[in-house]
Amino acid sequence: MKLNINFNPGPSQLYFTVPDHIRQALREGVPSLSHRSSAFEKIFAEAVENIRALLSLPASYSVLFCSSATEIWERIIQNLTAEHSVHLSAGAFGRRFYDTAVQLGRKSVVVEKPMGEGFSKAPEIPPTELVAITHNETSTGVTTPTEVIRSIKNSNPSCLIAVDAVSSLPYPRFDYESIDTLFFSVQKGFGLPAGLGVWLVNEKCMEKEEHLRSRGHVTGSYHNLSSLLKHAKKNQTPETPNVMGIYLLAKVSADMLRRSIEILRRETEYKAAVLYNALEQHKELAPFVKQNTVRSPTVIVAETGTHTATLYNRLVEHGIQPGEGYGRLNTTTLRFANFPAHSKEQAEQLADILTNYA
Amino acid sequence: MKLNINFNPGPSQLYFTVPDHIRQALREGVPSLSHRSSAFEKIFAEAVENIRALLSLPASYSVLFCSSATEIWERIIQNLTAEHSVHLSAGAFGRRFYDTAVQLGRKSVVVEKPMGEGFSKAPEIPPTELVAITHNETSTGVTTPTEVIRSIKNSNPSCLIAVDAVSSLPYPRFDYESIDTLFFSVQKGFGLPAGLGVWLVNEKCMEKEEHLRSRGHVTGSYHNLSSLLKHAKKNQTPETPNVMGIYLLAKVSADMLRRSIEILRRETEYKAAVLYNALEQHKELAPFVKQNTVRSPTVIVAETGTHTATLYNRLVEHGIQPGEGYGRLNTTTLRFANFPAHSKEQAEQLADILTNYA
Repeated sequence: MKLNINFNPGPSQLYFTVPDHIRQALREGVPSLSHRSSAFEKIFAEAVENIRALLSLPASYSVLFCSSATEIWERIIQNLTAEHSVHLSAGAFGRRFYDTAVQLGRKSVVVEKPMGEGFSKAPEIPPTELVAITHNETSTGVTTPTEVIRSIKNSNPSCLIAVDAVSSLPYPRFDYESIDTLFFSVQKGFGLPAGLGVWLVNEKCMEKEEHLRSRGHVTGSYHNLSSLLKHAKKNQTPETPNVMGIYLLAKVSADMLRRSIEILRRETEYKAAVLYNALEQHKELAPFVKQNTVRSPTVIVAETGTHTATLYNRLVEHGIQPGEGYGRLNTTTLRFANFPAHSKEQAEQLADILTNYA
Repeated sequence: MKLNINFNPGPSQLYFTVPDHIRQALREGVPSLSHRSSAFEKIFAEAVENIRALLSLPASYSVLFCSSATEIWERIIQNLTAEHSVHLSAGAFGRRFYDTAVQLGRKSVVVEKPMGEGFSKAPEIPPTELVAITHNETSTGVTTPTEVIRSIKNSNPSCLIAVDAVSSLPYPRFDYESIDTLFFSVQKGFGLPAGLGVWLVNEKCMEKEEHLRSRGHVTGSYHNLSSLLKHAKKNQTPETPNVMGIYLLAKVSADMLRRSIEILRRETEYKAAVLYNALEQHKELAPFVKQNTVRSPTVIVAETGTHTATLYNRLVEHGIQPGEGYGRLNTTTLRFANFPAHSKEQAEQLADILTNYA
């Protein structure tokens, strides 16, 4: 059965314009375009320009394309650290960023919170080259307030700050002064088919990679920062990329710009309020994250306890695909994405079903 | 202007069933599928099974998904060598595989042929861990005969043999006994949108990676062989992959199986004969590769000399997109892909235009 609406936090519901853009791409021959052609360069430039506008990205940042956020974890460690990073973890994805660093031979440190808790204040950071922060922990629905990121940067001005914004962008208003690199994948908030990661880096990252490379450190090959940047300056990628993915990102970010990022943000906040309210008012259900300040507006985790399976099935009967709880939260929580692809009406319908569930 | 037929060697002409498969995928909600769902696992299994059947791949080989052949160059060096590899190069892509090894800190060696020449006999291989062979050099239209690969394996039985089959598969009949790993990207012979690399590895590769890792060697993170294999055994990928790419690969390889690989091979040989014959009979044009035994059946490079620009424009007037010559061959050659997506009629039309060009 094909469900009407997909609230799984990723891959998630397609943004409503995507099927039309795919059909148009086929008519224009986009999938057969050479990645060294001027037609491709135009698509690349359009995607970069729209991302810059949508996220209010400062000129000092470059927009680079990788194949997934998982790849970008690896590239950040390879390119921006010689020996050491510190990872703030409030769940499975923060932890996996740390695991990646360890696999790559770094003597890294993880600062962990129990499941469902977040960093409402900046923790003490041991001396390090880079602090990795999961802005939005997709496994638990915990967010890291932007003030906390700013405070970490202020207390550790010589560290690079890397922000995993996989399941929050394009919603957050980031303070780019307090961040050196951030990234997302397109199958979450951008409502696109999976297969593309977007890596945003400032000049300090470029300098760090150059410094490491000049000292004989291996920073990777085709996807090290210098190779990515050299090609990006020509509106190209080092390898044959997911051309369709970049095309669709250009088109959907243009659609979002037309609708306006401020409207998308207000709608996200409205839908989050409706859903959290339904959970808070319910006798048997509750928000999994208790502390208001670290509750994610974009991935809403419901504590569903013994009702998990029944509620899951009830939602599916209504044509709604919930996200299962992550890992060992699988039997006691459900997750609901709140991305621009999810309309107010759909969120209200979901909230109604939750409210009426007894 | 959208051209009728794309002979660029990659991204190339889409296989004719691709647009329908994309429309069907949209109807089935494939782009929103969770990569941890049983529906995705079914697609993964179907892609692997069809690739196995199409390529007559022995059971000892695993089929793994990466994002590009360029990525697989990096993964082969990281996973299968500690210090040293030898690269046979007959053009730009063989050379870039070598450059990748050097970037990754290996003390590698390249054995090079002048442009347009190939390895018609096995060269002497200095002691090494891995020999990298470009089966089909996309920049020059040179192929490496399978007997030469076999002979290299026989003379160097303890080395791993890695074959770049990017622009030749699914055409070649490989002798898998003489190869340990091979790979391709889907936007060439498979006629798919770019954004997926397929990596085939035998058990010796797995053993080598385990050996290196057990000795504290860094073999990568999410895409090291053990991580890729662990997930592949569950019909999953470590990261959120290009789900649509894997779906389309499953569908198009099924279409090719229905048509039969033997028919595709015979058609490839027929079309290659028609095109090479047109070039050989021409007074002003010629095959760029002079030696018959190393002429690629799948990427045909024409020596077009001072006619390059005029002929290019003539072809475009006829709705035919040729591939430009690669790198410094840009002004004196044109390239023509001969993939399953290119019909006999289209190859004959191209040959006619070449023949009538004066």
